[in-house]
Amino acid sequence: TGQKKNDFANRGMTLENDINETNHFYLETNHAVVHKKPTPVQIVQVDYPKRSAAVIKEAYFKQASTTDYNGLYKGKYIDFEAKETRNVSSLPLANIHEHQVEHMRKVLQHGGICFFIIRFSKQEDTYYLPAEFFIQFWDQQFQGGRKSMPITFIKDHGHSIPFTFQARVDYIKIIDKLYF
Amino acid sequence: TGQKKNDFANRGMTLENDINETNHFYLETNHAVVHKKPTPVQIVQVDYPKRSAAVIKEAYFKQASTTDYNGLYKGKYIDFEAKETRNVSSLPLANIHEHQVEHMRKVLQHGGICFFIIRFSKQEDTYYLPAEFFIQFWDQQFQGGRKSMPITFIKDHGHSIPFTFQARVDYIKIIDKLYF
Ligand SMILES: [Mg+2]
Ligand SMILES: [Mg+2]
Repeated sequence: TGQKKNDFANRGMTLENDINETNHFYLETNHAVVHKKPTPVQIVQVDYPKRSAAVIKEAYFKQASTTDYNGLYKGKYIDFEAKETRNVSSLPLANIHEHQVEHMRKVLQHGGICFFIIRFSKQEDTYYLPAEFFIQFWDQQFQGGRKSMPITFIKDHGHSIPFTFQARVDYIKIIDKLYF
Repeated sequence: TGQKKNDFANRGMTLENDINETNHFYLETNHAVVHKKPTPVQIVQVDYPKRSAAVIKEAYFKQASTTDYNGLYKGKYIDFEAKETRNVSSLPLANIHEHQVEHMRKVLQHGGICFFIIRFSKQEDTYYLPAEFFIQFWDQQFQGGRKSMPITFIKDHGHSIPFTFQARVDYIKIIDKLYF
């Protein structure tokens, strides 16, 4: 099954890169306005050399308090988190942080469109999973449920995301199907 | 007129701090989900010491490609930029970048709620200015218009934002009035 996919150039790119390119395409074609949030950084020391740009000399990565991406499509707020795993049969929940899930709960509560984009990089399969289903599974781990989400759960409750040349992770197609 | 306002503690805080506190209050009271985007940073060198956190050793501030804040209120996408000036009678347009204005155009085009929060810090007055009016004025600067937006324009087309103890920049009140 990998044969046809590999016809596309740069197929080895990361999910994040593919999504960024897709968002760029959506923006250029005036389809949607979605951006990746910058990596949160705690800045400790900055030098201000004369006649040149300020240099950050000491900083640390901070944990993100929300998700990776948000934006606007057909008047609706959309918000999602991208996760890539080299596991072949499940996504470990340890990859996701509690406050990200809390953020997603709030987004749903306030009427936003919220989801995960999950890629199994070995198989090169990418799925759209509505946050509703993710949260349901997530909550069960605290009542003796699994700590890892089986690919079967993702296939049953999610949607395979088409890969096209211009929109490498064409998640808007799924949003159209589900909401419009 | 500053007398009553100064009864509130921490009145000397920056606009950004006031907005962050307001957003925190909105989040806690389940009113709206709005976050400041992290400062975009170009990371050049990172050290990975054994047994401790990664340290960013060289990085530079990047220009933001969008606005400072976005989020979700009553199912609607909202997006805004905060600007503070110590000028007393106008806001210099040099404070705003072309690509931020382009981003705002797109947000409006796709049905989002988009605006500026502008504070004149000497007078301690804060205004909500719909992006539509801002962009109109912005475009005129290239046809011989002014490079600085008079406070009278902001008062005529904008709305004074109430300052309350819990929501220091209660911009949702204005959104309610304009859209709901
Ligand atoms: Mg991610
Ligand atoms: Mg700003």
